[in-house]
Amino acid sequence: MSLPKATRRFVDEFRVLPGKPAKLAKRDPAACLGLEDSPDMDAAAAKNVARIADLQQLLYADARFSVLIVLQGIDASGKDGTTRHLLTGVNPQGVRVTSFKAPSADELGHDYLWRIHNVCPARGMIGLFNRSHYEDVLVVRVHELVTKKIWSQRYRQINQFERHLAENNTIILKFFLHISKDEQRKRLQERIDNPKKNWKMQVKDLDERKLWDDYMRAYDDALTECSTEHAPWHVIPADRKWFRDLAISQIVADTLDGLDLRYPKPTFDPSKFRVQ
Amino acid sequence: MSLPKATRRFVDEFRVLPGKPAKLAKRDPAACLGLEDSPDMDAAAAKNVARIADLQQLLYADARFSVLIVLQGIDASGKDGTTRHLLTGVNPQGVRVTSFKAPSADELGHDYLWRIHNVCPARGMIGLFNRSHYEDVLVVRVHELVTKKIWSQRYRQINQFERHLAENNTIILKFFLHISKDEQRKRLQERIDNPKKNWKMQVKDLDERKLWDDYMRAYDDALTECSTEHAPWHVIPADRKWFRDLAISQIVADTLDGLDLRYPKPTFDPSKFRVQ
Repeated sequence: MSLPKATRRFVDEFRVLPGKPAKLAKRDPAACLGLEDSPDMDAAAAKNVARIADLQQLLYADARFSVLIVLQGIDASGKDGTTRHLLTGVNPQGVRVTSFKAPSADELGHDYLWRIHNVCPARGMIGLFNRSHYEDVLVVRVHELVTKKIWSQRYRQINQFERHLAENNTIILKFFLHISKDEQRKRLQERIDNPKKNWKMQVKDLDERKLWDDYMRAYDDALTECSTEHAPWHVIPADRKWFRDLAISQIVADTLDGLDLRYPKPTFDPSKFRVQ
Repeated sequence: MSLPKATRRFVDEFRVLPGKPAKLAKRDPAACLGLEDSPDMDAAAAKNVARIADLQQLLYADARFSVLIVLQGIDASGKDGTTRHLLTGVNPQGVRVTSFKAPSADELGHDYLWRIHNVCPARGMIGLFNRSHYEDVLVVRVHELVTKKIWSQRYRQINQFERHLAENNTIILKFFLHISKDEQRKRLQERIDNPKKNWKMQVKDLDERKLWDDYMRAYDDALTECSTEHAPWHVIPADRKWFRDLAISQIVADTLDGLDLRYPKPTFDPSKFRVQ
């Protein structure tokens, strides 16, 4: 798939190369490739979003591909904000956002990919996962909800599962929203101080922050083990929201563009048809 | 629930009063209550949509209510266009649109409300049904897929089901998009002539148009039998798209407004919390 130069640069910088270590610690969460926050950048991001909205119509008509966008990141890394930026404006009929929470008793009665497969996007649709099956090698690992023997074989299982989806025409784009520990502190404090946001917090949410290093290790491994040609991970510098939104929208818009989507031919000769 | 005057007027004009006949034939599909297509009207509709987007956030935070919007109407009556207008701009995370197509073998193995209940909106969510369980007293009746004995008892079953949803905090708003037979002719012809639209048509789609009178009779009965206090039907004049969008967005926005939604109180004292 050919990509425009600007996107090529985002992809080159942020994609975790298959078989190479992700090395999160060496990646700057505040990077912005020399770009500066400005009305021009906002306009570029808005243009990407408008392109995604247009291309979604064509994706639906073409009906060959599904698109699956996976967002992962620590608390307050911007998963909700990214979802809103990327997909507000797209016809809600062509989009399905799934926020994965702690699994229900029924879901726990199945293997961990069961609930995931159940809501994968149909052909012509864009599916966005806010959290995903990766929680089963992240929170599950950090809190030792299963043994190492079990979580460590999940990387291979996930790769096989995603390969299956890709071979059946699902375009998969995975984004890790990379913020610094200090940026998380600021954002959590802001949530606490904001009456429009603090209702959704629990005191115990802050306990997770104490496990920062464990989470980073788990992310590093997951991104390293599960970035593949058919389902690549991107580490998006997410301390600056404008840059995060620009980079992700650009990669998504250009990936859709590269699919060479087309309107199908009608099944009848339109020139011969008059409605009575 | 108190409604602003303008909405009160839409509701008074278009709501089918419980226990009264819908009398579709006496309702003008091109009515616009003396309003005229103008930038002012577009701005008013856009303002409604922006209010819906804001109120959805609050609906989610408040988490007491679900909102279910049902759209029905003959082919080309504008169900897709209305969906796009009403919900594009709302955070896709808080919305789920379901387009009901011909039921699958699995769905046919259950009662007709099974697949409907399965996708009813969760608390805090807006669900929109593009077609719905009403197809089971419309297309199913017109094509005699079940006996009259069976479809005629469905009105009561549907009322009971919707009452159950309403009693469990689902706000239900049902809209019939009322277009004239001539307007449908124009729109179908336009679809046929437009390469961006004709791919989704089948020649047999036009056969349904021959059953116009049967459909109108079926709609008349469904709207008459199933407009209730807890789940009212509105007959929206839909020949003029701008008016349709204005009326529906106004009723939806003001209904949300009337719920007196609030952000919940936090479960801890925010003033005592500093994130480390």
